[in-house]
Amino acid sequence: MEYYVGELSRPYLRTLSLMPENQETPIHFLKTWITPEKYFYRRNHFSYPMLSPHAFFLPITGEVKQTLIFPYCYLKSLSSKSVTMVLECSGNKRSRFSPRVYGEQWEDGAISQGVWKGVALRDLLNMSGLNSAAVEVVFEGYDYGKRTDMEGIFHYARSLPMEKAMHQDTIIAYELNGKSIPYAQGGPFRLIIPQWYAMASVKWLKQITVIDHNFDGPFQTVDYIYYPHKEDDIGKKPVTNIKTDSIIQQPLSYTTLDTGVHNINGIAWTGYGTITDVELSFDEGTTWKRAKLRKDTNQQYAWTFWEYQWNVEEEGEYTIMCRAKDSTGGVQPLEAEWNRKGYGYNAVYTIKVKVE
Amino acid sequence: MEYYVGELSRPYLRTLSLMPENQETPIHFLKTWITPEKYFYRRNHFSYPMLSPHAFFLPITGEVKQTLIFPYCYLKSLSSKSVTMVLECSGNKRSRFSPRVYGEQWEDGAISQGVWKGVALRDLLNMSGLNSAAVEVVFEGYDYGKRTDMEGIFHYARSLPMEKAMHQDTIIAYELNGKSIPYAQGGPFRLIIPQWYAMASVKWLKQITVIDHNFDGPFQTVDYIYYPHKEDDIGKKPVTNIKTDSIIQQPLSYTTLDTGVHNINGIAWTGYGTITDVELSFDEGTTWKRAKLRKDTNQQYAWTFWEYQWNVEEEGEYTIMCRAKDSTGGVQPLEAEWNRKGYGYNAVYTIKVKVE
Repeated sequence: MEYYVGELSRPYLRTLSLMPENQETPIHFLKTWITPEKYFYRRNHFSYPMLSPHAFFLPITGEVKQTLIFPYCYLKSLSSKSVTMVLECSGNKRSRFSPRVYGEQWEDGAISQGVWKGVALRDLLNMSGLNSAAVEVVFEGYDYGKRTDMEGIFHYARSLPMEKAMHQDTIIAYELNGKSIPYAQGGPFRLIIPQWYAMASVKWLKQITVIDHNFDGPFQTVDYIYYPHKEDDIGKKPVTNIKTDSIIQQPLSYTTLDTGVHNINGIAWTGYGTITDVELSFDEGTTWKRAKLRKDTNQQYAWTFWEYQWNVEEEGEYTIMCRAKDSTGGVQPLEAEWNRKGYGYNAVYTIKVKVE
Repeated sequence: MEYYVGELSRPYLRTLSLMPENQETPIHFLKTWITPEKYFYRRNHFSYPMLSPHAFFLPITGEVKQTLIFPYCYLKSLSSKSVTMVLECSGNKRSRFSPRVYGEQWEDGAISQGVWKGVALRDLLNMSGLNSAAVEVVFEGYDYGKRTDMEGIFHYARSLPMEKAMHQDTIIAYELNGKSIPYAQGGPFRLIIPQWYAMASVKWLKQITVIDHNFDGPFQTVDYIYYPHKEDDIGKKPVTNIKTDSIIQQPLSYTTLDTGVHNINGIAWTGYGTITDVELSFDEGTTWKRAKLRKDTNQQYAWTFWEYQWNVEEEGEYTIMCRAKDSTGGVQPLEAEWNRKGYGYNAVYTIKVKVE
């Protein structure tokens, strides 16, 4: 029967743009611990870079005792570590801001979870040896292109303060989920920064440079800054750690349900700290009920699954709200902190359903 | 170089749900005359039906002189016709209604265009011969399942008034874009109704029955009805022909642009009649400028491409509106006619861009 042939019922990445390629994960279907590569969200600033064999040699230079160039195979022979972690674009959920802001209109799927394996950056920095003048470490990627707001050609580049660069779980990764890092995910070498939004995890690493001042590239000082006001830059601060957040994966908003018992479920995640509670409200936030959590306590950077059995007997329209709390006191606010470039949206997650 | 291997920069269908499967076309990338199968939107009421060899035999029965069963190969041997046409879900753009309505939250991509080849239904009805009692023709699909709003199991079934059933371009299709109709698109036999929204183009045809009354199945009398009011059914009327509509495919809303000349483009389409004008406004609808149209005048059911060269020298935020007009006087309104189930959204298409 020829009519059974072909792809049926397969979820795909949701494309926002192709040049550069930005595709988000259909998060309401992704209920696995590890996001498979084909569903891993993709976020790029520029076209995919052409890589030469040089990409398999990673230099560390600048304010170091000794410039070193690490070949791929040598780096793989060093003592390694693996981190299972949420990677989330700081613009995730941008389309939910009100008033709306310019930029890629992400819904909820600029987030994925993977196991990254690599070498601790501090091991490499210690091999090079830091000069006393060292203030920050700059990570330059192979990707480059134009910006709409200034003249010139720019490589994507970001810096880290020395403390974060020397964090035990800041790694130069070469594997994702047990395989060489896929090209679209930034291989052969990608910087991986747990707890921070993904702009810090620079893809296609070209060079690491220790500098004696604060880096002022446009992806450090123009983008990835919270600007609280539309018209001026007063009160600006850099985007760093992931905010406490959650999502309802089931049911979807604006769906209709039968009366009876329904399993409401989703995931919750945070940057510093770990998720301690997920709560649901069926009365616009007046009272909150605790969901059951399922997490791997050995994986502090990973997301937490949650679920709640909802018994609904009465027909009608319902608003369901969800909020997560973390061990540092982080909690999702009723309203997100608006900012001009639309980063860090983490308001209470709200859906509507009709029971009939 | 292993890092070049793998799928890059490919747009996908945008998944809304998998059971039933509802996936829309990423319309801002589809600028081809014919939508390839892999990007053809999918809209289902139920799980995909299991088809037996019976599906290759199509019965016409009821108020006919003679019940006939048409085998697939026999039907393909009859005189055929092809129609190139827009197929659009009546719920397309549902997510744009304000207040929002329940149902699948389609954005703009529940629309595709294909060439359907088949036999005119009236040829088949004439072979069977109609009884004088004939009032409507009912088309039942193989797909079936439960509804949330009533007890029981229902097949998807719709009827047509005799006039539309006997229209020269109402066909029993067996090919899409030169190949057997793909299973996900309703093969082996699909009813194809140009000018009307796609709920009329019944997939996986199981049986055609001529009846002597008005059909009252739930997909005819509960769904696919415009209910103008939230709380009562006053003023209801059936969903039939496609409303005059358009979309801006480039640029995308909430993107930033350089100063200079930009090509603004998209498509426009309508049900009865043909597109005569597409107009753009840059001043909230006060004045309108005509876009250049590109259409195939031999294909009255197909969409029309349009484009406009926009020269913008001044930085700032811009609202761009687009509206289509057709030969029957149809024009996109500033505000869509709200209805409880969210059909036929066709308000002026509006985007915002920032020039910097």
